[in-house]
Amino acid sequence: MKKLEDKIVSEGRVLEGSILDVGSFLNQKIDTVFTLDMADDIVSEFSDCSVTRVLTIESSGIAIGFAVALRLGVPLVFAKKYRSANASGNQLTSKIHSYTHGNDYTASVSSDHISEDDCVLIVDDFLANGEALRGLVDIVRASGAALAGCAVQIEKGFQHGGDRLREEGVRVYSLANIESMSPEDGVRFRP
Amino acid sequence: MKKLEDKIVSEGRVLEGSILDVGSFLNQKIDTVFTLDMADDIVSEFSDCSVTRVLTIESSGIAIGFAVALRLGVPLVFAKKYRSANASGNQLTSKIHSYTHGNDYTASVSSDHISEDDCVLIVDDFLANGEALRGLVDIVRASGAALAGCAVQIEKGFQHGGDRLREEGVRVYSLANIESMSPEDGVRFRP
Repeated sequence: MKKLEDKIVSEGRVLEGSILDVGSFLNQKIDTVFTLDMADDIVSEFSDCSVTRVLTIESSGIAIGFAVALRLGVPLVFAKKYRSANASGNQLTSKIHSYTHGNDYTASVSSDHISEDDCVLIVDDFLANGEALRGLVDIVRASGAALAGCAVQIEKGFQHGGDRLREEGVRVYSLANIESMSPEDGVRFRP
Repeated sequence: MKKLEDKIVSEGRVLEGSILDVGSFLNQKIDTVFTLDMADDIVSEFSDCSVTRVLTIESSGIAIGFAVALRLGVPLVFAKKYRSANASGNQLTSKIHSYTHGNDYTASVSSDHISEDDCVLIVDDFLANGEALRGLVDIVRASGAALAGCAVQIEKGFQHGGDRLREEGVRVYSLANIESMSPEDGVRFRP
């Protein structure tokens, strides 16, 4: 998506350690109208699927996940990163390693919220090593639901998590795919 | 909002320990179209304010916060519950006690995202003891921005956090205000 690539170049900042700061429009401070444009692009890409649920993980996937689910007219389900005090009943869980924070956590979704009758589109803000998406894919498979695929706003292609998911047959769509980036040379996108 | 009260009665479950499980439509699994209806109600209530920012706190405030900000055509800013590895620059912070989890945490927002030229509407899903909203009010005041007020989906009136904020002159609007609730007797709303 050309407009997203342009905004990454003009408003994003590349920091040391493969960190891309897009807090001014994509997370932290969210450009809501542009987020709806991005959601429309994702909905268009998956228009061949009869999606009944959008699944994301807290926190930064919720805004784009909500926008996609709203445009599809379906519920948004979000995985918690720990079992909530308010959660009850059977939980679908998956252990996920966070490279950002250097620890493991368990993602959980109530089994009441995804069933084998559903077709699930997974949506998140970033795809880097792919651990979070892999955990969500595992949760969808454990639920018995069909998996439409995964859609992300920004893929860090150079970390190859998306490539690995694609090799396994998961449909992965990213609005912007970064081939390389550095504080000195800025951002280069995959064609 | 009558429709929200009806959904709380028909789909919510009152658990021990003053817990209201509304995971089937308000958090965990989010009814996106109804969330937009609730956002429209909040926008209508604050139509006398020239809001330039919606502020919420991760995670469960993000969906309603996004919807309100989208309808207003302004950015959504969300406070992190810890300082993110990706955060940089000056942070506005406030220490908040969580009665749900029995611990303290620090909410933080980059000072780049709210300025003294802004008028901020704080939005969250629940208001109980009011600790989270109080922390967000402190952050708005520290930024120098004007505070339009606070809007929540469900206020637990019997825990009086909203009453205390109102006594301090903060404008607080809730779509449903629970006077009392118990597993035996269900939910009773304030008129």
